[in-house]
Amino acid sequence: MGYKYAMILGNLGNTCDRFCKGYKNNPSSDEMLAIAKEKIPHIEGIELVGTWDISPDNAREMKKKLDDCGFACASIIPDTFTDPDYGKGSITSISPSIRRKAMDYLRQMCDAAQVVDCKTINLWLGQDGYDYLLTADYDQEREWLKEATVRLATEYPRLNFALEYKPKEPRNFSYHSRMADTILAAKETGCSNVGVTIDTGHSFVAGENVAEAVVLAKRAGNLLFHMHFNDNHGSWDDDMIVGSVHSVVYLELLFWLKKTGYQGWLSMDQYPYREDGAAAIGESILWVRKFERVVDEHFKEIETLVKANDAVETSRFLRKIF
Amino acid sequence: MGYKYAMILGNLGNTCDRFCKGYKNNPSSDEMLAIAKEKIPHIEGIELVGTWDISPDNAREMKKKLDDCGFACASIIPDTFTDPDYGKGSITSISPSIRRKAMDYLRQMCDAAQVVDCKTINLWLGQDGYDYLLTADYDQEREWLKEATVRLATEYPRLNFALEYKPKEPRNFSYHSRMADTILAAKETGCSNVGVTIDTGHSFVAGENVAEAVVLAKRAGNLLFHMHFNDNHGSWDDDMIVGSVHSVVYLELLFWLKKTGYQGWLSMDQYPYREDGAAAIGESILWVRKFERVVDEHFKEIETLVKANDAVETSRFLRKIF
Amino acid sequence: MGYKYAMILGNLGNTCDRFCKGYKNNPSSDEMLAIAKEKIPHIEGIELVGTWDISPDNAREMKKKLDDCGFACASIIPDTFTDPDYGKGSITSISPSIRRKAMDYLRQMCDAAQVVDCKTINLWLGQDGYDYLLTADYDQEREWLKEATVRLATEYPRLNFALEYKPKEPRNFSYHSRMADTILAAKETGCSNVGVTIDTGHSFVAGENVAEAVVLAKRAGNLLFHMHFNDNHGSWDDDMIVGSVHSVVYLELLFWLKKTGYQGWLSMDQYPYREDGAAAIGESILWVRKFERVVDEHFKEIETLVKANDAVETSRFLRKIF
Amino acid sequence: MGYKYAMILGNLGNTCDRFCKGYKNNPSSDEMLAIAKEKIPHIEGIELVGTWDISPDNAREMKKKLDDCGFACASIIPDTFTDPDYGKGSITSISPSIRRKAMDYLRQMCDAAQVVDCKTINLWLGQDGYDYLLTADYDQEREWLKEATVRLATEYPRLNFALEYKPKEPRNFSYHSRMADTILAAKETGCSNVGVTIDTGHSFVAGENVAEAVVLAKRAGNLLFHMHFNDNHGSWDDDMIVGSVHSVVYLELLFWLKKTGYQGWLSMDQYPYREDGAAAIGESILWVRKFERVVDEHFKEIETLVKANDAVETSRFLRKIF
Repeated sequence: MGYKYAMILGNLGNTCDRFCKGYKNNPSSDEMLAIAKEKIPHIEGIELVGTWDISPDNAREMKKKLDDCGFACASIIPDTFTDPDYGKGSITSISPSIRRKAMDYLRQMCDAAQVVDCKTINLWLGQDGYDYLLTADYDQEREWLKEATVRLATEYPRLNFALEYKPKEPRNFSYHSRMADTILAAKETGCSNVGVTIDTGHSFVAGENVAEAVVLAKRAGNLLFHMHFNDNHGSWDDDMIVGSVHSVVYLELLFWLKKTGYQGWLSMDQYPYREDGAAAIGESILWVRKFERVVDEHFKEIETLVKANDAVETSRFLRKIF
Repeated sequence: MGYKYAMILGNLGNTCDRFCKGYKNNPSSDEMLAIAKEKIPHIEGIELVGTWDISPDNAREMKKKLDDCGFACASIIPDTFTDPDYGKGSITSISPSIRRKAMDYLRQMCDAAQVVDCKTINLWLGQDGYDYLLTADYDQEREWLKEATVRLATEYPRLNFALEYKPKEPRNFSYHSRMADTILAAKETGCSNVGVTIDTGHSFVAGENVAEAVVLAKRAGNLLFHMHFNDNHGSWDDDMIVGSVHSVVYLELLFWLKKTGYQGWLSMDQYPYREDGAAAIGESILWVRKFERVVDEHFKEIETLVKANDAVETSRFLRKIF
Repeated sequence: MGYKYAMILGNLGNTCDRFCKGYKNNPSSDEMLAIAKEKIPHIEGIELVGTWDISPDNAREMKKKLDDCGFACASIIPDTFTDPDYGKGSITSISPSIRRKAMDYLRQMCDAAQVVDCKTINLWLGQDGYDYLLTADYDQEREWLKEATVRLATEYPRLNFALEYKPKEPRNFSYHSRMADTILAAKETGCSNVGVTIDTGHSFVAGENVAEAVVLAKRAGNLLFHMHFNDNHGSWDDDMIVGSVHSVVYLELLFWLKKTGYQGWLSMDQYPYREDGAAAIGESILWVRKFERVVDEHFKEIETLVKANDAVETSRFLRKIF
Repeated sequence: MGYKYAMILGNLGNTCDRFCKGYKNNPSSDEMLAIAKEKIPHIEGIELVGTWDISPDNAREMKKKLDDCGFACASIIPDTFTDPDYGKGSITSISPSIRRKAMDYLRQMCDAAQVVDCKTINLWLGQDGYDYLLTADYDQEREWLKEATVRLATEYPRLNFALEYKPKEPRNFSYHSRMADTILAAKETGCSNVGVTIDTGHSFVAGENVAEAVVLAKRAGNLLFHMHFNDNHGSWDDDMIVGSVHSVVYLELLFWLKKTGYQGWLSMDQYPYREDGAAAIGESILWVRKFERVVDEHFKEIETLVKANDAVETSRFLRKIF
């Protein structure tokens, strides 16, 4: 049971979709911090969403609040997805002024990160992609994507930039869409402080086997920087409680995280539209810890199974532990 | 070229998603009516979203505005999806008071429909479904669904109730999810004024062949009451311009609409997140009319092809017309 | 623990795909019967594939063999899928002579069923569907489908005809594709001895929630006649060991089977391409029985959960039992 | 109209699936060559499947036959998918002797390639992957995959090795599954004669936008070595006639092939289960050439559109040309 657990603060807040503007009330960052401290089990770190939770203006104050709660800042997630200026791309917009605006904003978030002793910028570039066929110059936009990432990684060499991939939503196609293409994007930069975030639900939707994605990142040179956990029904980023649909998949994931020596956070990233946020996130943590414990207790046995290549033996093992 | 074309008025308005609250400004219903009249080609009907565009209070006034524009009211779409009270279901909520509230609201919309000479209530019950396994009593909730539908259809015998299906979103599973189960839901009511709306994009996501869905509705007793058009990439309700991804599928759809004698509206239902709304909807209409014209000009030839069961012959035909 | 378990005999035989003609040797029906008797736990019934395992010629002899093993014949599955004559449809072929040939063959299988005291014809019409758009007259072919089903059900009133649905493979679109459309097909016949078979894997690929499919069949008038079990990764009929991917889904399924009073067989239908067949099928049975036991032991608790509509409570329960 | 067109010879032969062993008769390689020459328009190259069409024994003879027909050998596709020895992997099998057998076989195919003046080994490693979770050591198997590829590429420096990716089938997960991970696999080798084959249908099933895959290969250093064409309904490798489902996607693909300077073959790879093989392949060629011509005639216009980022403008263009 060696991992440190974290959560995205905003997961305790309001939820909405394109039909309903708010299924809940929206507590302040301070209120959410208090809830996290009091109600969520095993939490040691908090991920802050840029602008919403943190900005250069309030960074010092936020640092103190986190300290008071005994929380580390596990990552900052710059918000390049709510501002309509970024609707057709932030650092890959065809507009030079929007690309500049996005870069300036990202630099502010990097500055804030340093104030709160945060090592990781979790870069989920949700608006950077495209919707319609024959409406984007993929080569040019990927070049801008690379250049901007290089610039950030070079200007902030003590920060790690974890590129979070997702195949679609809000754009119909994202540039960082799956593990392998995001590794390519990271390696294109030539910067050792650029890596990848796995969000388990994004990986499920991508049609990947998430454990294999962990191995890809390992082979590419320890490029797995960060982990987000949630569950879904397989075709969309439903952002549900871990374990509510899948189980074997998580077990295999935890095995390969351990086997590849993953050192980062296990952070919860859900969207409890209609559920009590604190309770839903707490459930996820308890599920992931359950899987972690099974792996700890059966590591050698699982190691033998993955080398044995025998589905019947694996099934017997799974029946035994479930 | 015999169909009447319509559009959902709100498609000209603001667009948002769960990340960005607004990609655009939000014009008033009046402004959207003016845009529809001036900029959208071939429009004869308007679909109004309940509460947003129409309520018992403004129905008479809205009727006059539509008349002034020369528009018929093609349908009213009651809004049971934006009010968080309906977050876990409207007429299928486990709360009796919410079910009652929903029924009262739906009756108001039926009243308003009669004021504006609208024949069709397009019932898209987006919140009626479920998210998690083992959290819903499907039998009980479907019973409530049936009872409420029967009640409406009986109280308003001169209105048609067109149940619009969609496999998911905003719920992970919708009760009206595909053509066949929605036919079952319609027939369960025993009411001849309950039928089905096809939204082409919903059908694509459902894994149906939409033309076959038209035939199912025909065989079930002329149950296709209404049509919504848009396009997507196949895995989600992207609500794009018709023809931007698919083409043969629409051609086959238009053929079977004609062959089964569909008499209703062809209405556009898009969500032009980042596009000029009027231009995007206009494009869809021009695409559908293009497909309609091809079918008109080649009806006998297509009829022969669907009986011939020969993919090569069909391919030759398609190459000829594209 | 009240269900009777069965398996498809041929699941113990050779496996192939379109690339490899045989991953294994092909034992005779007799050898497979011996394996079933000796190696598969809890089996009381056998499903026989028409022509392969049973024909009018050997029916009496097969009856004796089954008796000797103490097996009931759980169903006969007529083989309308291996003969290339049926490549473009059996009872829905556009060729009258092929439709006749198919009917004659199906009658033979019904005759054989009566010899072996088998109540259920499991009608998986794999070749009845279509591949290409604009190459099939859906209305005409569905009419042939209905007429043939009516004829069989009328000629053999003491047999039950369980229509097994599957969205695709070997055709790109099947006529019996999901629960709801297969209910429609069954009800179109007006024959009370026509119902539906759920194959769990087919249901997963269809995008259904299989437990909800059980409820649909119940509401349509107890139309669930038969159950096939296997697992897959969600996008294709991988025909894997139960429990190797999913678990909560099966739990919910077993709950609703019990709650709706399902009385039929729980039969295993796998395709263990590269596994030891007997061991793989045995695993599935042990998994299904595990889920059956959990439901038996927690029935009231689950009943409360499905009425409570609270994902967090359900998650707590699932963590407790897994 | 600058591309050279080719086809896989075996596409003219028998077709089967796991249910039906043969929808057609199986002509000999000689007969298929004669058909290709006489009936398929615009063909200049032939892809030969190892063992089936070519072996070291008959390579010289095959070279003469190809010459007589005026065909180049566009590629050799070693057959590591029909021999059950490779059922759980060829060069990634956990059995050292099977890995050796596979390597020896692949070397024979490389030798044969040199005899027929073929530059490209199209390496579709269909059996190299896995089916069940927790049954494979992904890191070890990928290491074997890399080592074997390096060995071949080093031993045969004048040949190009084009890795053909496909997300699944016959295995539930393939190691070469999408463009980006196959680029990673190619680059891992450090060999400049290792690149990638796009099969359009595999790309559709993978959830990629195939045009973007072309750009990824370009950016990775001109790694697109070969192209296979076919169409499908989006969820499976249906191997249909080009254009029977999609059209805009192909148009965009042809645009980016031209824009990135692709120099290889455009080869047809179909599986006309129930169609006349020659006619079905001929259709595909005529469709691809149609798209090629549209791109040639509108290259500048399309170039402007992809830079304009305006879905409405793109739609207008598409309506104009269709």
